[in-house]
Amino acid sequence: MRLSQFHLSTVKEVPADAEIVSHQLMLRAGLIKKLAAGIYTWTPLGLKVLRKVETVVREEMNRAGALEVLMPSIQPRELWEETERWQKFGGQLLKIKDRKQQEFCYGPTHEEVITDFARQELRSYKQLPINFYQIQTKFRDEIRPRFGVMRAREFLMKDAYSFHLSKDCMAREYQNMYQAYTRIFTRLGLKFRAVFADTGAIGGSASHEFHVLADSGEDAIAFATGSDYAANVELAEAVAPATPRPAAAEAMAKVATPKEKTCEDVAKLLGINIDKTVKTVAYCVDTEKDAQFVLVLVRGDHNVNEVKLTKVAGLAECRLATEKEIRAMLGASPGSLGPVTAITTKEIQAEDIAENRLWTDPTTSRLKDVTRRLRVIADRTVAAMGDFVVGANEDGFHLTHVNFGRDLAEPEVVADVRSVVTGDPSPDGHGEIRIGRGIEVGHVFQLGQKYAEAMKATVSDEQGKNQVMFMGCYGIGVSRIVAAAIEQNFDANGIIWPEPMAPYKVAVCMINPKGDAKVTEAAVALYEQLQAAGVEAVLDDRGLRPGAMFADIELIGVPHRVVVSERGLTAGTYEYRARRATEAEALSLSQVGERLGVLLTD
Amino acid sequence: MRLSQFHLSTVKEVPADAEIVSHQLMLRAGLIKKLAAGIYTWTPLGLKVLRKVETVVREEMNRAGALEVLMPSIQPRELWEETERWQKFGGQLLKIKDRKQQEFCYGPTHEEVITDFARQELRSYKQLPINFYQIQTKFRDEIRPRFGVMRAREFLMKDAYSFHLSKDCMAREYQNMYQAYTRIFTRLGLKFRAVFADTGAIGGSASHEFHVLADSGEDAIAFATGSDYAANVELAEAVAPATPRPAAAEAMAKVATPKEKTCEDVAKLLGINIDKTVKTVAYCVDTEKDAQFVLVLVRGDHNVNEVKLTKVAGLAECRLATEKEIRAMLGASPGSLGPVTAITTKEIQAEDIAENRLWTDPTTSRLKDVTRRLRVIADRTVAAMGDFVVGANEDGFHLTHVNFGRDLAEPEVVADVRSVVTGDPSPDGHGEIRIGRGIEVGHVFQLGQKYAEAMKATVSDEQGKNQVMFMGCYGIGVSRIVAAAIEQNFDANGIIWPEPMAPYKVAVCMINPKGDAKVTEAAVALYEQLQAAGVEAVLDDRGLRPGAMFADIELIGVPHRVVVSERGLTAGTYEYRARRATEAEALSLSQVGERLGVLLTD
Repeated sequence: MRLSQFHLSTVKEVPADAEIVSHQLMLRAGLIKKLAAGIYTWTPLGLKVLRKVETVVREEMNRAGALEVLMPSIQPRELWEETERWQKFGGQLLKIKDRKQQEFCYGPTHEEVITDFARQELRSYKQLPINFYQIQTKFRDEIRPRFGVMRAREFLMKDAYSFHLSKDCMAREYQNMYQAYTRIFTRLGLKFRAVFADTGAIGGSASHEFHVLADSGEDAIAFATGSDYAANVELAEAVAPATPRPAAAEAMAKVATPKEKTCEDVAKLLGINIDKTVKTVAYCVDTEKDAQFVLVLVRGDHNVNEVKLTKVAGLAECRLATEKEIRAMLGASPGSLGPVTAITTKEIQAEDIAENRLWTDPTTSRLKDVTRRLRVIADRTVAAMGDFVVGANEDGFHLTHVNFGRDLAEPEVVADVRSVVTGDPSPDGHGEIRIGRGIEVGHVFQLGQKYAEAMKATVSDEQGKNQVMFMGCYGIGVSRIVAAAIEQNFDANGIIWPEPMAPYKVAVCMINPKGDAKVTEAAVALYEQLQAAGVEAVLDDRGLRPGAMFADIELIGVPHRVVVSERGLTAGTYEYRARRATEAEALSLSQVGERLGVLLTD
Repeated sequence: MRLSQFHLSTVKEVPADAEIVSHQLMLRAGLIKKLAAGIYTWTPLGLKVLRKVETVVREEMNRAGALEVLMPSIQPRELWEETERWQKFGGQLLKIKDRKQQEFCYGPTHEEVITDFARQELRSYKQLPINFYQIQTKFRDEIRPRFGVMRAREFLMKDAYSFHLSKDCMAREYQNMYQAYTRIFTRLGLKFRAVFADTGAIGGSASHEFHVLADSGEDAIAFATGSDYAANVELAEAVAPATPRPAAAEAMAKVATPKEKTCEDVAKLLGINIDKTVKTVAYCVDTEKDAQFVLVLVRGDHNVNEVKLTKVAGLAECRLATEKEIRAMLGASPGSLGPVTAITTKEIQAEDIAENRLWTDPTTSRLKDVTRRLRVIADRTVAAMGDFVVGANEDGFHLTHVNFGRDLAEPEVVADVRSVVTGDPSPDGHGEIRIGRGIEVGHVFQLGQKYAEAMKATVSDEQGKNQVMFMGCYGIGVSRIVAAAIEQNFDANGIIWPEPMAPYKVAVCMINPKGDAKVTEAAVALYEQLQAAGVEAVLDDRGLRPGAMFADIELIGVPHRVVVSERGLTAGTYEYRARRATEAEALSLSQVGERLGVLLTD
């Protein structure tokens, strides 16, 4: 492409409403143009990148044996009623009435449509397994669309749906897709991780997210130094300590901690390591009759992981206790709580007691073990600690040398209720945990029979008996990948495309203020040689001054730049520079060819 | 592709609700599956064909210098208000409210969005001319969606929009697109014509439709035997007769035509050629005060062309007169009308006269020339006739040997108001007119400044002065082409794809009931050789009986079939058959290769 015949539309200023770097750079490089909130036009340059991603996705899906289809964007309400998602999907579902007042939605996903297709098209186990995919425009009516195409309303997605007679077969295709996704993101030149994930609202039994790693990522990911293991921080297991709990060493004592509210401060005051302290966090579970009080114990340097906590029996609906509730129950502020406690009744109303809103304790002693009435949940790390420090349930005081079984009862529940931290052993035994950030760009699910059951999608098995099919579903945010790639690859001058996603591999920049025919000829000849060799090149023949020209080429992220100038030609050289290099080099034509992996001749 | 790993879904029965052959065959061959009225899923097989069309369109648009973009399907109401099309576009516009109650539509076309893009992106004449296109899903809420993807609601379209500083430049790009379209339809292997067309509702100054020729086409097209000339029958000029009107030969006479109501019957009764008769058709123009009466005269074997008629001054809003109006005005039924007339007053109410609802005539004579009060419009062919036959304005009677200037006044207007018929001279002077039928698959328009004016899309010209841009727009119904190609190419056994659109070029059919390894190996080897040679082949390894296998391959329209069987291999031959051939041939492998244009070796 000659830039004089192209539409390049770069901007110097950082757009005011773009918060993240990929959004800023996509606008500045002129890849997208906003039409409405979360709705963008892809310019000629932007679309070239989008199509690169699309092509790699398509090739790898085909190679994996999936069959491409194209489903409609407009879907009838009736199908969504069958799975009860017409209501459940919530406000993201863009609902539409046609001229006959029939109800439709703009598909945010296609489980219903493909399952309807499958129940009509698939009748026998002989047609299974099968995997249908499409690359198609979707719409989700986000409450707060933002970050450009990262969280757009209208976006391009690859969604695939597989159908199986058995769970095992579904699991095999899941692995097949996992491998295909790995090839896709590898081919795109992205640093990524497959992350073990929660299945969330879509349901099903197994799930991995594929994350492009970037410091600006919305999601925290725990990954192992010694293996491919990666998991959402919410889900990564905090391995139980290998060493047993030590025996109690000293007697429990009460110490003044007048200003110290955090474990860090207390440890500093007492001159001990923070890993000798225990943090107490109070939760409530609201029931119709009362609010049940729960104390959760994690080590001073750890944090409670609420995703894990809600998996403890009875805590599915727990919430943080309010300061008022804490004070009423324990007589202290949140910075001085501990499990060695008794309930002060002075603030509890007779009415509360009568209605059983709070646990009551007949004694008034402040130091009494009431853990059998007040639930105490201890993280596995805490359960293995001895002689630890906790709050005294009295503002300005902590207890030292506290030991389970001596100063308080054994905790009612011992479980993994904390988030992993850097340095934790990896759950798979290979090295340590590191925490990184990622942008979710793909997701593979084992859906099981959820949709097939609801929509009665069956096939006859070898015995001629009807069986509800098992399903997998596999999504890739095609347009989102473009933004994610930028979040991972940019510098102060603009985008640095991974070569497989670059709109052009090479920019031939012509510096020719005098209009010297020799320079033009050499630039065009180089451009045409590159084109003929199958290298996607762009010829900057706009006649801009070098500074403006180079700024554009760097901003739009072309991986290789070759400058053709009168001075260079006189010296028999071309100025070559890789996008990530700090210096340009004066090279002969054949050397330029070597850098680009093609044979170039004078 | 091995069919055992593909999803082929053919049906023997003709689907009940499919009226036209392309719809029937697309359902029977399993190319599409209905989701809702006018909304279809493209199956793996159907999508392969659709993508072939898409690829040819994209390649030729790129070659023509157009730049691909991707605009959103969801468009804000505000833009449509700027061009006043939010209301004017009518019921086809699918209107949508998002969760914030803001109004959008699902784009049925993109003039507003691209003009908004252009007014932001284009500032200088230096950026012009430029042509942006996209291949994208559109929605038009048809009242009566039908004929499958031929008139669907959700469909795939290529739409392009060009921007220019001058009308001349717009006209040049129009020619460029005209050539690109010609290449597209030629490359797709379709018989087509570029048809001069009316610009209709979109407006503008010049327009051609591209029609795929097919007997089932909705539109009648007039084309020349001696040139590329083609026009919509509504628009094709009926050339004025070259010979002058002959002198009157005999005196006018009244003859009884007791049962004869049509020119054909009257000619037969009188023993004359129908081209000696004149047909009189009565129209009314409703004004606020009255309904003006007009008689239109065309030769007995011609038909009034209302598109042309409405272009006569004062007749823009004309309509056919009712039988009651005709009888009140002329005292005869529609089968006996003529221009040699007087108005009978017996059925005209005094009130009508007073209110001037109808023309009144003081005389009561039945044979009086009142053409100066009753407008008479004569087609140019009629104006050149002498001694013709017309109705006598008296049921059961006609007049013979009628002559203008003698028996009645010269007609008030002489104009081209008839449709062309087969045998008319071509307006461009090259040969005769033939009438064919076509399916519109493409359209090129010169829009002029209509949208740019309404949306204030300007650029600065060489003098730095702001100029409203000129625009062209160019559409292709990508999904419609698939159906149109079938309407043009099918037989009793199914689809016959033009090779460039075929999902696969060759089907290798394996007949191997005994599971002979030699047969399987030979079939796979042939299939793999074809694949390696870049020939898109499908291997039918489903193990079906020959009849069922061949029926499928013919139904889905694969252009070439090669059968590998034990008997053939023993004889050293493969059975080859082209889809359009009536007989199969036993050929050596190298001969098969010759038929397919590749080198095949044992």
